[in-house]
Amino acid sequence: MSKLLIVGTVAFDAIETPFGKTDKILGGAATYIGLSAANFNVDSAIVSVVGEDFPQEYLDMLKARNIDISGIEVVKGGKTFFWSGKYHNDMNSRDTLVTELNVLADFNPVVPENYKDAEIVMLGNLHPGVQMSVINQMTSTPKLIVLDTMNFWMDCAWDDLLAVIKKVDVITINDEEARQLSGEYSLVKAAQKIHEMGPDYVVIKKGEHGALIFNDDNIFFAPALPLEEVFDPTGAGDTFAGGFSGYLAKHEDISFESMKNAIIYGSNLASFCVEKFGTERMESLTDEEITERLQQFKQLTQFEIEVN
Amino acid sequence: MSKLLIVGTVAFDAIETPFGKTDKILGGAATYIGLSAANFNVDSAIVSVVGEDFPQEYLDMLKARNIDISGIEVVKGGKTFFWSGKYHNDMNSRDTLVTELNVLADFNPVVPENYKDAEIVMLGNLHPGVQMSVINQMTSTPKLIVLDTMNFWMDCAWDDLLAVIKKVDVITINDEEARQLSGEYSLVKAAQKIHEMGPDYVVIKKGEHGALIFNDDNIFFAPALPLEEVFDPTGAGDTFAGGFSGYLAKHEDISFESMKNAIIYGSNLASFCVEKFGTERMESLTDEEITERLQQFKQLTQFEIEVN
Repeated sequence: MSKLLIVGTVAFDAIETPFGKTDKILGGAATYIGLSAANFNVDSAIVSVVGEDFPQEYLDMLKARNIDISGIEVVKGGKTFFWSGKYHNDMNSRDTLVTELNVLADFNPVVPENYKDAEIVMLGNLHPGVQMSVINQMTSTPKLIVLDTMNFWMDCAWDDLLAVIKKVDVITINDEEARQLSGEYSLVKAAQKIHEMGPDYVVIKKGEHGALIFNDDNIFFAPALPLEEVFDPTGAGDTFAGGFSGYLAKHEDISFESMKNAIIYGSNLASFCVEKFGTERMESLTDEEITERLQQFKQLTQFEIEVN
Repeated sequence: MSKLLIVGTVAFDAIETPFGKTDKILGGAATYIGLSAANFNVDSAIVSVVGEDFPQEYLDMLKARNIDISGIEVVKGGKTFFWSGKYHNDMNSRDTLVTELNVLADFNPVVPENYKDAEIVMLGNLHPGVQMSVINQMTSTPKLIVLDTMNFWMDCAWDDLLAVIKKVDVITINDEEARQLSGEYSLVKAAQKIHEMGPDYVVIKKGEHGALIFNDDNIFFAPALPLEEVFDPTGAGDTFAGGFSGYLAKHEDISFESMKNAIIYGSNLASFCVEKFGTERMESLTDEEITERLQQFKQLTQFEIEVN
């Protein structure tokens, strides 16, 4: 089993969807990635920062899932990063209501000594300068570096983003962001251009329309499971990234064949994430449920055609 | 092999896309359905109407593909239905520039005697009253009736549309239309509601995002092939329907398992249709190309996961 190093936000979220609204609840990219990857029983660590207001019970919950939290800095007197958003009726778009960076504004990530040789590094959505700092702290070259990012950094940290993209093996990004990053409308062409920027593997997340992984001329597609109701999409993309990197860490196989399975698992886990508010569903998830859902993914996509 | 009866428009189209524009070229739902189904070497017939201005060479081209054209009425002195449209840059939306119904305005479909016992009936997009008239002319109950329709008829012929939906086994419809027809945003719920309106099988076409088929609790998904360029989307939905119904006519198996393969073939054939203007690509298509593309669909979606 490979060690998995995760960097990203650990945060408070307040979420409003057509189904209801929450007070401040547990959120953050690294939280979702960690909870998702924990389903593969891998050794993982989170590098992040929180304030003194961050409940110990949340940290304990992560620790109970075999996540090393020694890299989560707790800033005395500081306040935890807070995001609040409201989803529109179609659940495909949202308005950000509040963003309070708080302790995140001065975040200097410190990779724990025993994770500086992690084989898999999962860079959750954060300022690309922070992501680069984590890469630079590694004492041995990781087998695989996976980068998740978003349009915000394309708008306000373009050069830093390009620098980190150049260093990674896999990028995960949504369809609109892939178009913005590449200047190409066709996702096939967008993936080719992004490949030229550095990553050998380009994963394009299309939300309810599934996800594509590109590697040279190879393309593989993982559908999203059609659901009766999407309750809260928050964290779905991070959960996908956690399933992807967690699967690869567990199986120690970073071939394209292995990555196919990894995006199926990413999509599998994300399909649970959206069933309840915040991290609630991920915290209650069992191996049996994941295995059962894998069968649903097979029924959804596997076919037998005799060519004649 | 089952006989396949197709009803739909045979028309002139003038198309403008970001890649160029055409003069009046061959178009129409029944044309695309017929050309697509012809790849399965089935016995098929088209019921439609054209004007005296319709070139004999087009009719000959259809006839050469084993399509019975005796049900295509040629109206003396009449003009053929003409549609002109312009696609936006994203190719996902278009403006209709011209619609001249011409001979279509008074179309009374007449099913040829030797197709009144066709086992498969494919009702292409047309006024639901015309579709119903075709059903009523059948002297033996078809094994399967497939209905394609669009939002236009929901807006202006609601009652007629509901009456024909009640009579059919399969409906093919796009995602927005499924939402409009059912009043449900979730496609899973939309399919359930549409199922209650009559059809045992609900096929929801999502364009570049693939197609879903629902039957009770069973769901199967056929992706669209990711393409470098979509040249002209005109006729892709009809080509999908032609592949679906053509496959089922050839294999005489209308089980859900068979329909899975049928939507894969529908998606396969539609992926060719969009590569050139109008019917051009479908007219040059070979069995070898279809078989090769089937391999691409397998590579795109088939995976092997050992649960552990």
